[in-house]
Amino acid sequence: MYGVYTPPTVEDIRLRWQQICTWAKQNGRCQRYQKDVELDCESGWIYFVHRGMVRLQGQPRTSSVGTSIAIEVPKDVAPSLLALVGVGQPFELGREQYLQATSHVHNTEVIRIHVSELSFVPGFEIDVLQAFRYQHQRQMRQLNNVTQGRVIDQLLGYLYLLAEEFGKADSKGLHLPFVLTHSQLAGAIGSTRGTVTRLLGELRKNGEIKIAGDNTISLPLRKKSPLHLQLLE
Amino acid sequence: MYGVYTPPTVEDIRLRWQQICTWAKQNGRCQRYQKDVELDCESGWIYFVHRGMVRLQGQPRTSSVGTSIAIEVPKDVAPSLLALVGVGQPFELGREQYLQATSHVHNTEVIRIHVSELSFVPGFEIDVLQAFRYQHQRQMRQLNNVTQGRVIDQLLGYLYLLAEEFGKADSKGLHLPFVLTHSQLAGAIGSTRGTVTRLLGELRKNGEIKIAGDNTISLPLRKKSPLHLQLLE
Repeated sequence: MYGVYTPPTVEDIRLRWQQICTWAKQNGRCQRYQKDVELDCESGWIYFVHRGMVRLQGQPRTSSVGTSIAIEVPKDVAPSLLALVGVGQPFELGREQYLQATSHVHNTEVIRIHVSELSFVPGFEIDVLQAFRYQHQRQMRQLNNVTQGRVIDQLLGYLYLLAEEFGKADSKGLHLPFVLTHSQLAGAIGSTRGTVTRLLGELRKNGEIKIAGDNTISLPLRKKSPLHLQLLE
Repeated sequence: MYGVYTPPTVEDIRLRWQQICTWAKQNGRCQRYQKDVELDCESGWIYFVHRGMVRLQGQPRTSSVGTSIAIEVPKDVAPSLLALVGVGQPFELGREQYLQATSHVHNTEVIRIHVSELSFVPGFEIDVLQAFRYQHQRQMRQLNNVTQGRVIDQLLGYLYLLAEEFGKADSKGLHLPFVLTHSQLAGAIGSTRGTVTRLLGELRKNGEIKIAGDNTISLPLRKKSPLHLQLLE
C-alpha cells in the first residue's frame, strides 16, 4: 500500500454534482413529474433527485405459504415504503422487479445517467457509490427500527430517522417539510393504515409529535428519552 | 462526458482482493475469532470477512413512548439480526453505536483496513463501495420482506434471501451451510423465539423447508409459488 489519501472536499463533490446537472439538462436527461407519478425506470441506470423527492415502494406480495393459490392481500395492507430519496441522492431499481419509484411531491425532477457514464466525470462514480454506502447505513437503522419493539416505538423511531435526514430545525423542534399519508407511514413500518391513525393520535396526545394544519409533523426536542438520544446521537 | 467505460472484470476484482489479503496478513491486520465472539470494531475502519461469517446485530432498544422511565425489554425479544456478512464482503459500524459485530462461526477471520487506506490499491476503493451498493440492494429486499405480509411469509422470505446468497445447490434444493438459532431468526424478522419455533414446525410440516440433523435448513426447489419466483427471479 502506498500513496497519501486525500478525501474529496464537500466543495469538490458539489462542483461535480453541478457539472452533472448541467450536462443532464443539456442532454435531455432531466425529467419533471407531478405528484404521485410512477417513474419509468430501467435496469442499468442510476437516477438522481434533482428537485423534490422520490419514494421507493415495494410491491405488495401475495402469500404463498401452505397453498398453491395466491392469497389476496387484505385491503388495509399498505405497499411497503422502503426509502424516501431527497435532492442530490441517487437511487436505482436494479433488476429487482418488486421496486417502484414514484414522485413524492409536485415538480419532482429526476436525472438519469447510465452506469457506464458514471466514470466520465472523474470522481463522480465514487461520489455516487459513497451515497449508496450512506443510504445503506440509514437502511440498517430503519431495519433495526422495524425489527424491534412495539409498533408505536417503530412509528416514532421512523419519524425521528426522517427528521434526522430531512427535518428543518425551528424553535419548536424538527419539522418534516413534506406530508406522508397514514398509509405510507404504515408501509414504512409494516403496519396498517388504521393502526397508524390510532398511534399518531396517541403520540400527539402524549406530546411526542405535533401535527400542523397542513398535516406535516414536527418532533419537539425538549424531551430527551433513550430513544431520542439513540436516534439523534 | 467523455471516455470509454471499461468495467472491472471478475478477475481484476479477485486479484485486488488477493493483494489486500496478502498485505493484511503481512501487517497483522487479520484476526481470527472463535464462534460468537463480539468483535472490537472502531469507527473509521472497514472490516472484511476473510473466512467464516460475521453477523451484525442491533442492540435491543428500550422503549420510550409515553414514559420518562425506560421499559424493560421482554425476555423473549431477540436483538435484531441486521445482516450476515460472508467471505470477501465488507462491513462497518460507522458511528452507529447501536451496531454490534459478532463472529458467527468458528475460526472466522476478519481483515481491517482504515478508510484512508482503501485507495492505496488502485481500484480497490470502488470494489468496496460496489460491495456496499450490492448490500444496500439486498437490505432493501429484506426491508421489503419484513414490512409486508404474515410472519410466516416473512420467515420463509428471509430464508429464501439467505439461500439465494449463501445456499449451496444440491439435488434436493438449496442448503444453508450454517446454523441460525431460532432467536437469531426471530431477530431478523422482528418476531419472538417462540413464534419462530412454532412457524418453523409449520413450514417443515408443509414441506416448505427441510431441517437436517445438524439443524441446518434446506429449501426444496420443486415448488414454484409466487413468493419463490419473486425471490429467486
